[in-house]
Amino acid sequence: MRQFIVVGRNAPTTDEFALDDLPAAGRMDLLARCVTASLLLSHGLRESVQTHLVLGDEFTVRFEGENLRGLHPDERSTAALIRSALAEREEAIGQIPVEVSSGVSLVRMDLDATLATVSEQSEIYRLHPDGTPKSERSPPESPAFVLSNHQEFHDDDAETIAEYAAGEICLGPKAIHADHAIAVTHNWLDTDG
Amino acid sequence: MRQFIVVGRNAPTTDEFALDDLPAAGRMDLLARCVTASLLLSHGLRESVQTHLVLGDEFTVRFEGENLRGLHPDERSTAALIRSALAEREEAIGQIPVEVSSGVSLVRMDLDATLATVSEQSEIYRLHPDGTPKSERSPPESPAFVLSNHQEFHDDDAETIAEYAAGEICLGPKAIHADHAIAVTHNWLDTDG
Repeated sequence: MRQFIVVGRNAPTTDEFALDDLPAAGRMDLLARCVTASLLLSHGLRESVQTHLVLGDEFTVRFEGENLRGLHPDERSTAALIRSALAEREEAIGQIPVEVSSGVSLVRMDLDATLATVSEQSEIYRLHPDGTPKSERSPPESPAFVLSNHQEFHDDDAETIAEYAAGEICLGPKAIHADHAIAVTHNWLDTDG
Repeated sequence: MRQFIVVGRNAPTTDEFALDDLPAAGRMDLLARCVTASLLLSHGLRESVQTHLVLGDEFTVRFEGENLRGLHPDERSTAALIRSALAEREEAIGQIPVEVSSGVSLVRMDLDATLATVSEQSEIYRLHPDGTPKSERSPPESPAFVLSNHQEFHDDDAETIAEYAAGEICLGPKAIHADHAIAVTHNWLDTDG
């Protein structure tokens, strides 16, 4: 099992955003690409992946590869899936997930709660330029990787992550987009380092 | 210098496609993501990259990192850039490129002509599951990588590529999307294997 947690601090927490301008919707374009980069193969799904989008530190949309249906590779349809999840926000009570469609659920959880849940199953690693270069270590078993969408982590978020993280891993010398970081991480694990 | 050649056999060759349904436009979503994966860093451009989209084996849209302006990370705006290039199709006479905007040009070149031009500067490699695993070789100097967008290469295209290619390289055991393959390839070169 591999997990990815993508933190979108300024991401929408309601379904009131337009599919025609995803960058303006808290970089929903990038969040959508993180979902597809983590879950899609060329002709199929990565079944043993779970991806968690933490939106505005208020809601988490969870994608489970094992049960996922209806995920397509383009940004717009993926953003529409996230929007449909957020449309159920009033149904998300306590920390009980609302299943929105097969393999997609919405839960009222901030970053701390999401990390707490994920850390029950997986060791958490932060992807970070100052971390251990991936060439200097073997890929972890059953890891969860935390990424920020396009900004540096808030100080609060960085502290929260530090509480849960088993380490920091650096993918390479260039700062790349989160979706590309996910593709590189998958390849690192696929090829066993 | 790194180059990427992405072959979109059923891609549009006119500007008559809708930005609201990029997958239906010959998988313009994927072509757009290949452009951004090849040229964008987290906060900047890869200046020594050139990317060539071969559309319908009739036109090639070329992106040059060194001079590129106005490229954003989302699919829709990138597809709009490609559409603006195709709007100049009547101006593309012979094999003289039409500069559409800074760093973006359109040229009436099929795959063969594009490979011939690129091979003057770079060694051409096909990314292919049956190729040499990247772990078993060092990254080439000044390479050009050829990828298909989402289908297998046409037999004709595969033959054309074989005429120019110095070798085939396999990125890993899983078949991944072309944009993710580009991200992985960049990381391979960035980290010097």
